[in-house]
Order: sequence, then C-alpha cells, then structure tokens
Amino acid sequence: MMRSRFQQEMQDLREKLLRMGGLAELAVDRACQAYTDRDLARCHIVLENESLINAAEREIDELAFDILATQQPAAVDLRFLLAVTKINSDLERVGDQAVNIAERVMDMIGLPAVELPVDIPRMATAASAMVRRALESFVEAKAEVAQAVLEMDHVVDRMRDEAFIMLVRKMNEQPQVTQQALDALLVARNLERVADHATNIAEDVIFWVRGFDVRHHAQPDMAAAQTAEGPKQ
Amino acid sequence: MMRSRFQQEMQDLREKLLRMGGLAELAVDRACQAYTDRDLARCHIVLENESLINAAEREIDELAFDILATQQPAAVDLRFLLAVTKINSDLERVGDQAVNIAERVMDMIGLPAVELPVDIPRMATAASAMVRRALESFVEAKAEVAQAVLEMDHVVDRMRDEAFIMLVRKMNEQPQVTQQALDALLVARNLERVADHATNIAEDVIFWVRGFDVRHHAQPDMAAAQTAEGPKQ
Repeated sequence: MMRSRFQQEMQDLREKLLRMGGLAELAVDRACQAYTDRDLARCHIVLENESLINAAEREIDELAFDILATQQPAAVDLRFLLAVTKINSDLERVGDQAVNIAERVMDMIGLPAVELPVDIPRMATAASAMVRRALESFVEAKAEVAQAVLEMDHVVDRMRDEAFIMLVRKMNEQPQVTQQALDALLVARNLERVADHATNIAEDVIFWVRGFDVRHHAQPDMAAAQTAEGPKQ
Repeated sequence: MMRSRFQQEMQDLREKLLRMGGLAELAVDRACQAYTDRDLARCHIVLENESLINAAEREIDELAFDILATQQPAAVDLRFLLAVTKINSDLERVGDQAVNIAERVMDMIGLPAVELPVDIPRMATAASAMVRRALESFVEAKAEVAQAVLEMDHVVDRMRDEAFIMLVRKMNEQPQVTQQALDALLVARNLERVADHATNIAEDVIFWVRGFDVRHHAQPDMAAAQTAEGPKQ
C-alpha cells in the first residue's frame, strides 16, 4: 500500500522526535555517569552534544511547521502536531538540564572528593525512566502509560526534598564541604526538573490521545485550594 | 470596516496572551516584594494565583487550536499561532518560578532575618524588565526589541554568578545562616530562569516576525565550539 506524502511526513516527524528523545536521555545519563566517575571527558561530551540537540529541535519545529502550512491536518493530527512541538521544547530543555548537571560536575571535579548524603544515581535512574516511559507513551499512543509517568513524579520530588534536607545539614556540620554539597543539591534539582519535563511530555501525549478533556480536568477553584499544600522543604 | 471572524479570533488570542503575561509578571513582582518585606500574605497570594495562570494557559492553547483547526491560516499567521503557543508555555513557567520564589520566601520568613550579600530586588527588576520588553516586542511585532531582550540575558546571568559566589562564601563564614543563604541563592536562580523564559519569548517573537532565518542563524559547529565557554561559577 502506498503511503501518502502526508503520512510519510508524519512518520518522519515521529522518528525525528524519538531520535531527539534518545539524545536528550543519553545526555542526562552521561552527565550522571560523569558525576559518579568524576569524569571530566564525559562532561565535555555532554557540553559538545548540546548543539546536536538544539539542531534537532529546530529541524523538528520546521518539519511540523511545513506540515501545518502545506497540509490541512484533521483535528487529531493537529493535536499530534501541537503535541510534537511541545514535546520537542521539553526534550530540548532536558538537554539543557544535562548541560547544567555536567557544569556542576565539572565544578565538583575541581574540588576535593567528599562523601555526600545523597544518592544521585538513584535519582538519575528514576528521572531517566520517566523520560523513557513518556517517550514510550508517545510511540505507543497510550494515555495509560503517560498517566503512570505523572504518578512517578512525586517520587522524584520526594527524593529531591530528602536531598535538600540532608545536604543543608551537611553544610551546617561541615562548612568546608559547602561547595560540593551545593553542587550536589543543584544536580538533584536539575534531575527534579528532568522529571518535570517528562511529566509535561506525558501530559502532551494525553492531550494528543484523548483530546482536551484531561487538561480541562483541573478545576481552577480546586487547584487554588490545593496550591498551598506543595512541598515546603 | 468589518472584521472577519478570523481576525477577531487572532486579536482575541493576542489580548488573552497579554493578559496572561501581565499575570505572570505580577506574580514575579509580588514574590520579590514578599522577599523584601518578609510578607507571608503576599506569598500566599502568589500561590493562590497560580491556578489563574494555569487556566489562562489552557484557554489560550485551546483558542489557538480552534483557530488552527477551523481556519486555514497562511504562513505568517501560522508562525504567529505557533509562537503564541510557545510564549504561552513560557509565561506559565514564569508563573511557576514566581511560586518557587514565594516558597523560598516562606521558608526564609520562618528563620531569623539576616543580612545577605545579594541584591535580589535589583535582579528582580532586571528579570521583570526582560519579560515586559519581550511582551512589548510581541505587541509591537518588533524583532529589534526582541533582540534587545536577548542581549539583556547575560546581565542577569552575571548577577546570578555573583550571587552564587558571595552566598557560598557567606555559608562558609557563617554556617548558622546556611539555610537563609541557600534560600536566597535559589531565589536568584529562579530569577535567572525568569530571564531565560523572557529570552525564549523574544526568540519566538523573532521567529514569528522574521521567519526561520534567525533560528537557522545558529550554526551547530560554531555552537559546539562555544558551548564550553559558559559560566562555570
């Protein structure tokens, strides 16, 4: 069966986005591996690869734009295209977080190695898994998988809160390791942000698959009443 | 002269986005005012208003989607609509940063007030001005104004770097104020992110006004060579 140009372009877009997702995930994994191994070379690879991710973002945006401009996509395809452009931005920002992590690791490598009360690899694994599952939900067009990603977010948030408390205590007890503890704290924060981007991606998948209903789900008044409950640390 | 439905919807979208921009900017200003005045009530207002910003984001996304689905916008209008959806996300995230700042301020209010070597109001003024000018560039469709916003970004980055250095030194010298210094440091980081979002908005305006040329401007190889030059702190 022949595929129309439209179908091919849509497929092309999907594949490009997945490749970009792979690059972003790899960047986070590399940056966290560099943290564990105090590996300066790997930090540099992350910094150098940022431009590949940025180039991929532009390419995807342009292709989505071309499809919108030249075809007249139906409602579901339109939702897909808008979801792609949003997921695209989030993946680019995951790449930015990997760069931020690599920069903190470079700072740490310049300082004496110290034992810190934070399990960055465990947090990295969780955040990475969220990105991977969010991309899976996109590939498989499965809102349930995306929903599961949303539920993983509070696990990473809790890890960040724990890290925050433990590292501040460490700074108080051993001021001479403040800089290292602060670097680790910021890495934890960056990983929390990676998880947030995975959450955004999952929401975009749900929007694409189910339409607007999920986003309507949040009721402003209810949301207002709940806002004050967020983690205070 | 009668306006077409299309023109009215586009105008409506523009106005909604501006109102949302006003809400996001106000949230940042309020959170920073709360920092200066140690004003818990103002923090709560910021937390409560987050849901208004989230609701505005959804409304704008839906209107943009409706226009895309029912009209067949020409290339320049299509660029405008895509720019709007991206600016919309950035404004919502500016609102998130205001919430983060308010949460840090709430933490600080629970601790003894101390003198800290950081000028948060000055940073807030700079970041806020960037958001305002980015929105102006959108209203006036002026790429030059947007370009000026891009150039303001490194000023805020430098302030953040200075704050970082001074506050870490403070933590080392006076471990008893570590928590307050850390809160201030995170506020500085949040303001840097507000400035980053203003930069994103400015880029989207340039993309809309000038087309893809500006985004093509970044050459991957050049960018790779420059990546390693970022601030190391």
